[in-house]
Amino acid sequence: MSLNMTLSCPMPKLDFDTITLGHGSGGLLTHKLLDAGVFNLLANDILDKQHDGAFLNMSGQVAMTTDSFVVSPIFFPGGNIGDLAINGTVNDLAMCGAKPEYISLAFIIEEGLTMQDFWKVLVSIKEAADQAGVKVVTGDTKVVDRGKGDQLFINTTGIGHVLPEADIDENRIEVGDHIILSGQMAQHGIAIMSIRDGLEFETEIETDSQCLNHLANHLVSQFGQDIKWMRDPTRGGVGTVLSELAKGTKLGIDLKQSLLPIDEQVEGACEMLGLDPLYVANEGLFITIAKPESSQRIVETMQGFSEGQNATVIGEVTSNHQGQVIMKSTIGGSRVVSMLPGEQLPRIC
Amino acid sequence: MSLNMTLSCPMPKLDFDTITLGHGSGGLLTHKLLDAGVFNLLANDILDKQHDGAFLNMSGQVAMTTDSFVVSPIFFPGGNIGDLAINGTVNDLAMCGAKPEYISLAFIIEEGLTMQDFWKVLVSIKEAADQAGVKVVTGDTKVVDRGKGDQLFINTTGIGHVLPEADIDENRIEVGDHIILSGQMAQHGIAIMSIRDGLEFETEIETDSQCLNHLANHLVSQFGQDIKWMRDPTRGGVGTVLSELAKGTKLGIDLKQSLLPIDEQVEGACEMLGLDPLYVANEGLFITIAKPESSQRIVETMQGFSEGQNATVIGEVTSNHQGQVIMKSTIGGSRVVSMLPGEQLPRIC
Repeated sequence: MSLNMTLSCPMPKLDFDTITLGHGSGGLLTHKLLDAGVFNLLANDILDKQHDGAFLNMSGQVAMTTDSFVVSPIFFPGGNIGDLAINGTVNDLAMCGAKPEYISLAFIIEEGLTMQDFWKVLVSIKEAADQAGVKVVTGDTKVVDRGKGDQLFINTTGIGHVLPEADIDENRIEVGDHIILSGQMAQHGIAIMSIRDGLEFETEIETDSQCLNHLANHLVSQFGQDIKWMRDPTRGGVGTVLSELAKGTKLGIDLKQSLLPIDEQVEGACEMLGLDPLYVANEGLFITIAKPESSQRIVETMQGFSEGQNATVIGEVTSNHQGQVIMKSTIGGSRVVSMLPGEQLPRIC
Repeated sequence: MSLNMTLSCPMPKLDFDTITLGHGSGGLLTHKLLDAGVFNLLANDILDKQHDGAFLNMSGQVAMTTDSFVVSPIFFPGGNIGDLAINGTVNDLAMCGAKPEYISLAFIIEEGLTMQDFWKVLVSIKEAADQAGVKVVTGDTKVVDRGKGDQLFINTTGIGHVLPEADIDENRIEVGDHIILSGQMAQHGIAIMSIRDGLEFETEIETDSQCLNHLANHLVSQFGQDIKWMRDPTRGGVGTVLSELAKGTKLGIDLKQSLLPIDEQVEGACEMLGLDPLYVANEGLFITIAKPESSQRIVETMQGFSEGQNATVIGEVTSNHQGQVIMKSTIGGSRVVSMLPGEQLPRIC
């Protein structure tokens, strides 16, 4: 799809090949850069006004979320920093039970980035925004001198209406609730590691970066209050997110290692790198905590979506070991799953 | 005020002095950093929920705007990157005729930033948010390796309701309308230049960074449709903003150099540095275009606010030289004011 899109959105002819400090001046060069590409590619009725801010009509409860993306390198198997930045913020909104609608887009470009690379990222942003059904409504472009940034950083901030059926609240979680994982763990982190300097290894593993709003919004609409909590385990992975939750709710969580979905190649790569897949970042995966009597139907519904085809129950909430996550291993032992203590994989998103 | 605030918000005791990659992991160290300082300092009912997103109640027309701040150095006379980041986004909302309400805050920290410097920035953020009356409701913290960033970059994205009386629209501008400047030009840019490596010079010039929402919102409420357009001339300065406007509206703009308010010291510094003050960045200044019959009352109202005490009419909209800004100089000649062609002062905001 990326290739087709790049072909159907060829880079406009420009009188520069690389981005310079002048493109961040707010003056003529900034206009040239934006008029040439960004505004046309991302065009919509709101962005087209080109004021300093966007005007939106909202009514009711709205969710707002922000994320900066500093992933290194900016291109990686299955994606790049552009679609990652859209999907990341779209997914955070979806996890709030909201319908992602409007996104702001702010670039910090290191002087010397080629226009071709910037264009590829822009096209991916366009594709990802279309896929998720969100509009980029306002933006900002800054350029920093060589050696004071790293090619490209992107901030996306998103807003959208909370679905009327949504009641995502960790205080509603009770003993006996089921913990559902929407798919296989650790793909994004391993895809990035596979091309990191000094670590490269042969693999076909691609990032799982994808928008989760269509599935997550569908679940909330269909199952309403039976969905108690959702979260996408990005930095820190499934282990950190659940450990945080146990600590916050003072409830216990039981996980079964044998139930955790993971691709064989990804598992092999984790072993080779000495990484625990529970702490490896994901960008297209989410955890749902649901009433036990609905969990089977929720899992079946998820499996009907490509992004949820490997969905499964991985554990449950318990009154034992309050504030802790305990994982029963495949060979019968048990261990505490705590928060990621330091930095396992820097700049993974 | 900064000093008092720093004293009343002493840095919490921490077991680290500098920020490391681990503080951006999303794991235990990120929690330590946020729990120790950020959440307490910026506490409000919405941020306190600590979900991935904030829940807000909105109804009606809302403005949304984003800006990344990469100013170098991060501390400068009269302010730092923290209050700049709040004021910048607050002001963009105010220029849309909106009441700034909610702000997201995203940090990209270079490994090695001292916790003390980070704390100083946080305290300034808190002060500026309080001054403007906005809540920081959601955030993000990333850390990049040494040499891949430059101490600290901040993105702020803001939303707020558009005032019912507001009708800020460049299409409403007509021949004869007056152009009002709220104060003296070029202070921010010159304050930054005065401490740039290799350029340092002795001066008492401080940034003009301040929130403009109280004044701008008051004007919109009081004068309604008589206020046709507002914009804060940050990067690119007064010259670029007006030149953009003339181009966009295909109207002419007449400026009189003798009417342009500028501090003597700032003017002297511009001469010394060979800079045209029309292109130097401002962070606490705005342009208003208003019906001529109201402009005198608008100026008087502005002069009643400290941030508008030097407000004055600087020119008017004309049917001559369509699409161009022409400035009549103090010695009688005329010249075209075009957009800043390249980069005059990189990383000024």
